[in-house]
Amino acid sequence: MKIGIVGASGYAGGELIRLLARHPKVEIAAIGSRSYLGKPLSEAFPSLAATDLPLTFVAPEEMDGCDLVFLAVPHGVASGMAGALVEAGQKVIDIGADFRIKDLNIYKHWYKVDHKAEELLTEAVYGLPELYRDKIKDARVVGNPGCYPTSVILALAPLLKTGFAAENTIVIDSLSGVSGAGRAEKPLYHFPHCAENLVAYGVGTHRHVPEIEQELSLLAGTEVKVTFTPHLVPVIRGILTTITVGLKKDCETEELIEVYRNFYKGEYFVRILGPERIPETKDVLGSNFCEITARVDKRLGRAVIVSAIDNLGKGAASQAVQNMNIMAGWDEKLGIEQLPIYP
Amino acid sequence: MKIGIVGASGYAGGELIRLLARHPKVEIAAIGSRSYLGKPLSEAFPSLAATDLPLTFVAPEEMDGCDLVFLAVPHGVASGMAGALVEAGQKVIDIGADFRIKDLNIYKHWYKVDHKAEELLTEAVYGLPELYRDKIKDARVVGNPGCYPTSVILALAPLLKTGFAAENTIVIDSLSGVSGAGRAEKPLYHFPHCAENLVAYGVGTHRHVPEIEQELSLLAGTEVKVTFTPHLVPVIRGILTTITVGLKKDCETEELIEVYRNFYKGEYFVRILGPERIPETKDVLGSNFCEITARVDKRLGRAVIVSAIDNLGKGAASQAVQNMNIMAGWDEKLGIEQLPIYP
Amino acid sequence: MKIGIVGASGYAGGELIRLLARHPKVEIAAIGSRSYLGKPLSEAFPSLAATDLPLTFVAPEEMDGCDLVFLAVPHGVASGMAGALVEAGQKVIDIGADFRIKDLNIYKHWYKVDHKAEELLTEAVYGLPELYRDKIKDARVVGNPGCYPTSVILALAPLLKTGFAAENTIVIDSLSGVSGAGRAEKPLYHFPHCAENLVAYGVGTHRHVPEIEQELSLLAGTEVKVTFTPHLVPVIRGILTTITVGLKKDCETEELIEVYRNFYKGEYFVRILGPERIPETKDVLGSNFCEITARVDKRLGRAVIVSAIDNLGKGAASQAVQNMNIMAGWDEKLGIEQLPIYP
Amino acid sequence: MKIGIVGASGYAGGELIRLLARHPKVEIAAIGSRSYLGKPLSEAFPSLAATDLPLTFVAPEEMDGCDLVFLAVPHGVASGMAGALVEAGQKVIDIGADFRIKDLNIYKHWYKVDHKAEELLTEAVYGLPELYRDKIKDARVVGNPGCYPTSVILALAPLLKTGFAAENTIVIDSLSGVSGAGRAEKPLYHFPHCAENLVAYGVGTHRHVPEIEQELSLLAGTEVKVTFTPHLVPVIRGILTTITVGLKKDCETEELIEVYRNFYKGEYFVRILGPERIPETKDVLGSNFCEITARVDKRLGRAVIVSAIDNLGKGAASQAVQNMNIMAGWDEKLGIEQLPIYP
Repeated sequence: MKIGIVGASGYAGGELIRLLARHPKVEIAAIGSRSYLGKPLSEAFPSLAATDLPLTFVAPEEMDGCDLVFLAVPHGVASGMAGALVEAGQKVIDIGADFRIKDLNIYKHWYKVDHKAEELLTEAVYGLPELYRDKIKDARVVGNPGCYPTSVILALAPLLKTGFAAENTIVIDSLSGVSGAGRAEKPLYHFPHCAENLVAYGVGTHRHVPEIEQELSLLAGTEVKVTFTPHLVPVIRGILTTITVGLKKDCETEELIEVYRNFYKGEYFVRILGPERIPETKDVLGSNFCEITARVDKRLGRAVIVSAIDNLGKGAASQAVQNMNIMAGWDEKLGIEQLPIYP
Repeated sequence: MKIGIVGASGYAGGELIRLLARHPKVEIAAIGSRSYLGKPLSEAFPSLAATDLPLTFVAPEEMDGCDLVFLAVPHGVASGMAGALVEAGQKVIDIGADFRIKDLNIYKHWYKVDHKAEELLTEAVYGLPELYRDKIKDARVVGNPGCYPTSVILALAPLLKTGFAAENTIVIDSLSGVSGAGRAEKPLYHFPHCAENLVAYGVGTHRHVPEIEQELSLLAGTEVKVTFTPHLVPVIRGILTTITVGLKKDCETEELIEVYRNFYKGEYFVRILGPERIPETKDVLGSNFCEITARVDKRLGRAVIVSAIDNLGKGAASQAVQNMNIMAGWDEKLGIEQLPIYP
Repeated sequence: MKIGIVGASGYAGGELIRLLARHPKVEIAAIGSRSYLGKPLSEAFPSLAATDLPLTFVAPEEMDGCDLVFLAVPHGVASGMAGALVEAGQKVIDIGADFRIKDLNIYKHWYKVDHKAEELLTEAVYGLPELYRDKIKDARVVGNPGCYPTSVILALAPLLKTGFAAENTIVIDSLSGVSGAGRAEKPLYHFPHCAENLVAYGVGTHRHVPEIEQELSLLAGTEVKVTFTPHLVPVIRGILTTITVGLKKDCETEELIEVYRNFYKGEYFVRILGPERIPETKDVLGSNFCEITARVDKRLGRAVIVSAIDNLGKGAASQAVQNMNIMAGWDEKLGIEQLPIYP
Repeated sequence: MKIGIVGASGYAGGELIRLLARHPKVEIAAIGSRSYLGKPLSEAFPSLAATDLPLTFVAPEEMDGCDLVFLAVPHGVASGMAGALVEAGQKVIDIGADFRIKDLNIYKHWYKVDHKAEELLTEAVYGLPELYRDKIKDARVVGNPGCYPTSVILALAPLLKTGFAAENTIVIDSLSGVSGAGRAEKPLYHFPHCAENLVAYGVGTHRHVPEIEQELSLLAGTEVKVTFTPHLVPVIRGILTTITVGLKKDCETEELIEVYRNFYKGEYFVRILGPERIPETKDVLGSNFCEITARVDKRLGRAVIVSAIDNLGKGAASQAVQNMNIMAGWDEKLGIEQLPIYP
C-alpha cells in the first residue's frame, strides 16, 4: 500500500514516518511539506536519516498514486484537501480537527474557520478504534482524535456507558508535554522559559472541549458538558489526564476497576491498572498504549480516573496507523507494537 | 533575635538558612540535625558555604538560647519537641503538620501517630498570615501551612468568604515539583525515572486533605469536603493548583477577579492576575509570592481558579519567615523580599 | 535461540528485554535478578507489561537451557559466572567490564577486585563490531564495550589507524545522561539535585580509562594515554563525546571527514556527518546508531571530533544485540533497526 | 546613583533589574528596549512585577540623567552608543562584546562588524574584578567579560601567572545552560528539541575565543592559543568549564590547589574547592560566585581544572553589578550577596 503524508515536517508527521518506515505492509510514497519543499527528509528530521528511503518533500498536492493519505495540517486546510483525495479514490486519515466535529456550527464556533468539505463530514468516522472499529473499517475519511480527547474519552467511556457517571459533574485536568504544541517556536516553548515551569492555559476555551463533549454525549446518550483545563508541563511527550466525576451508584474501587476491565476486554492497546498502581506517562512513552485506572472516593461519592498516553503516539501518529491497519483489514498492531522506551 | 532550626539539613531547612543568613534582624544560633551531627553546614549544603557563619550541626535538642525555633521534622516528632521549647519560653514555628490540624481524631486518623502536645494544639495558630495575621502576632506556637494547602486555601478563601462557591462541588488538582517530596531518595524521584514523567499519586488519600478541609470549612462557615489529587511533575520547585468549583451566583470573570482583588487588597505577597494572564510557577520561583487568577465558565456555571507558589517559598520556608516577622512585630517583608529568579 | 539475561532488572537489562521481546529470531527464556526474585517482569518494568511473555525473575544461576546469556551484573560478579556458562556450552555476552580488559594487572588496579575467570580473558573478544566483527563471529565470550569507550573508540579509530593523530595529545570530555549511572538511587541522581545541574566527576580516575587506552593503543600500534573527564548532565539517555587531538598531517576538515567516511564505509550503524552538521544525542536516541563528525582547527593544528550515542543503545544493550546477531550468523541489524525517537 | 539599562528586556537585562531593584544604593531610572517601547516592565518580566517601580520601557537613547548605563545590546550596537554616553559624563558598563577585545583587527575578524568607538577601546577596561580591580575603579567604560571567558580566565589565571601551565596545550570544553543563548526563539532552543539533547556547537569558531586568548596571553606574558568547544545542555542557567592543560612543573593535586588558594586569597566571589569536591553549577545558581578546583593527572603530567558559574550571574549581570560597585567606590558585594538557590 502506498502512503502519502501531508504536513510531514511537523512532529506528528515525523512520528508517522518513523513508524511507517518500519511497517511491514506499506511504502511511504510521498511526503508533502510546503516549508521543506524540495529538501531531503533528513533536513527536517536528522534522526530519520536511516530510513534509507529516497524521500524528498514535495508539494502537499502531489499525492497522486497514494492509496491512503495522512493529513497533518492545520484545521481548515485539511477540509480543503480531503475532497479531491476522496474523489480520486484515496483514503484519508486527518490527524487534525477537520473531520472530528459532526455539528458544523459547533465546528465554526470553536475553530473560527469555514469547513470546505461539509459533504464529507457526515460519512467521516471518528477514529477511536476501541469505540468505532467497525465503522473505521469501511471509512473513506477518518478524523483521528485529538490527543487530549483520546485520553479523556477512553477514560470515561466505561463509566458513561454503564451509567455510573453523573454526567453533569465531570471535571477534567490534563497535563501535556510540549510536543503537543507542535514544532513552531513561541516564547512559551522557549527552553529557558518552559523548563522548570508549570502553566495552565486555555481555561474554558480549549478547542478540544467540543470534541470531548460530542463523544461523551454519544456515550452517555444525553448531553454532557465538561470543564476541561489543559496544563503545559516540561516534558517532551506524554499526556496525563485526571478526571473527577460524581458517581450515580455506590461502589468500591475494585468494582469500578472491574467495570473498566470488562469494557476493555480484548483491547490490546488499552490497559487497566488495578488498585496498586496509577498510570505514569513514562510507562507508555513512544508507544500506542493507553493506561487507565480508577479510584472511588467514598467520602464524596466521586470517582477519580487517571489515564496516560503518549500524545504523539496514541494521541496522534500511532493511533492513525492503528486506524490505517483497520481500514486495510490488517492486524491492528502491525507496525505499532513498539514497547515503551524506559527510562 | 537568636534563631534555632531543627531538621536543618532538609530542603526546607536549607531554604530557611538561605533566607535567615541574609535577614537583617536575626542570627542563626543553632542548626540541628541528627544525620549531619557535628558536621559543618557546607557539607549538607555546599551552596551555603558563603553564609560565613561558623555553623555546625548540633543535636536537635540543643536549642538553648534561641528565642525562636523552627521545626522542620517529620510529623509526630515536632509534637514531641514543642512542649519543652514553649516551656523554656521559646517560640515555635512548626514547618511540619503537627500543629495544623485542630481535631485530634482527624490528626490521628490521617497521620497514624499519637500527638505528644495535645495541650498546645488549642493555642497553636495556623500560620497563614493573610488569614490569621492578628492571631499569629501573639502566638507561642505556629503551625506553618502545608505547601498544597497554602496554594488551595489562598485560592478559595475569597470565594468561600463571599458566598460565591458551592461548597460541595470543589475539585482540586495540584502539580508539584519534586523538592516537595523532600531530600530522601526513592525510585520515584530518581532522575531517569522522574524526568520526562507525569504522575498522579495519593488519590483521595493525601494527608493535606484534612488540613485543606479544616480551613475551607472555617472560611465557609459550614463543612466543606474536597476531592484533592496531587501530581508529581519534573520541575524542582513550584506548585500549580487548579480548582474547579460551582458558582452560587451568576457572574462574569471580571467581577470574580474583582472579588479577589478586594479580598487581598493591601496584601503584598498575594497578587491577583487579571483576565489577560494565568499564573505560571516560574513567575514566583524562589520568592514568597502567590499568584492567583479566576475564570468563569458561563456554560457550566463554574469557576476555575489557578494559583502558583514556590513550594519551598510561600509553601514552606519564606512563609515561615513571614510568620516569624509577624511574631516579632517587624515588617512582614523583612528578609523575604527577593524577587523571583527568571529565567 | 533461547536467551537468558542475568541482572535483568537494571536499566541495561530492561533495554535488552525491550529489544529482544520484539526480535524475530530469539525467545527470552530466563530473566535473572536477585532483588526481584519470584516477581513478574512488570514489577521491575511496568512499561514492559505488554511483552505478553510469562516472564518471572529467577535466580541468576538458573540459566539452564539458554543458548546465549547476557550478563548485566557488577564487575567481579560476571567473571564468577562466565566459566560455568561457557562450560555448559552457553555463549556469554558480558555487558559489564569483566571481559574487556586484557591485562589482568590493569584490571585489578582499576577495578579493585580479583578476576575469577582468568582463563577466559584471553579468548574473550572485545565486542565492538565495527572493529572486531570477524572475531566476534566465533567468540564464546564477548566483553561488550563500555558506553563512554564506545563513543571514544569509534570516534578515534579512523585517525589512529591512518596515522593522523598525535597519540600523546588526546583530550576527551564526555557528557552522559543519568541512566548511565544505573538504577540505584544516590543523592547525585535525586531529581531536585540532578536537574538543572552540571557536574564533572571521576577526573583522572574513571574506570573506562584503561579500556579506552587499551583499544586506542591497539589501533595506533603504540601505547596511547589519554585524559578523560566524564560529566553528568540532566538528560536521561545519551553520550556526547568531544575529543581534541593534535594532527600529525596538515589537512582540511573536508579531507578529514573523508577519512572517516572511508573508514566506516558500509557500516550501517556508524554515520559520518559532513561539515554542515554536528552530532546531537537526540538524533540517535533509543537507537543503535553512532554519529560522528570532525573539524580541523588550522590555527592550532588540531582536530576536534564529536560523537553521539545512546548510552543504553549503542553504549550497552543494542550493541549487545548486534554482537548476538553476529555470533548467531544473522543479519546484524535484526531487532535493532529502530529509528531514533524524536522529539 | 541613577542607573540606566539599555536592552533591558533580554535575560541579562532582566537579571540586572532583579538585582538593582534590591540594591541599597542605586535607583533604576531608565530601562530601554526598542521591542517593548512604551510597555510596562511587567510585560517583559511578569516575575518582576513586585519591583514596585513605575518602570516603563523607553527608547534606548533616552538615558539622560543616568549616572551609569548598562548596555545589554548586540555587538556593534553598543559601540555606537557608548561615545555619546561617555561624552555626557555617564559611565558605561557594556555587557556585550564591544569593549572586550583590544585589537581592532581581531574584533573585526571575529565579529564581522565595524567598531564605532575606536577611541574608547584603549581606555576601556576588561571588567574582571579579580584581575583588574584597580583599573575598573577609575574606568569610564568597562567591557564586562563574556560568560564562557569568565569561567575560563578565572580557572587558568593562577596557572599561567605562576608558570605552571604549558601555554600551547590548553584544551577547553565548556557546557552552558540555554539562557546563555538569549531570549530569541530558535529551533535549537525549542523545548521539545532542546530537552533531552546534548549538542556541541561553534567548534573552533566561537566568538569568545579571541577574548579568552587575549586575556590568557596577558596573564602568561606570551601568546596563548586555545581550543575551545562550547556545548549546549538542557539546563536553564549555569556554565561548567573543564580545562586540560600540560604542566611545566611536577606537582601534586594538593600543591596545585594551594596555588589557587593563594592566588585568590581574600577574593569573596571566587572559591577554591579542595581535593574532596568538584564544582557543580547548582552550588552557584543565582549568585555571583565562581567555584574552581584542580586535579593533577600524574600519569600524563597534565592538570584538569573545573570551574562553575551562573552564566547570568558571574557570567553577566551580577559581575556587572560588581563592576559598578567598584566604580562607585562601594563595598564590592553590595546587592549581590545572594546565596545560591538550592535545590
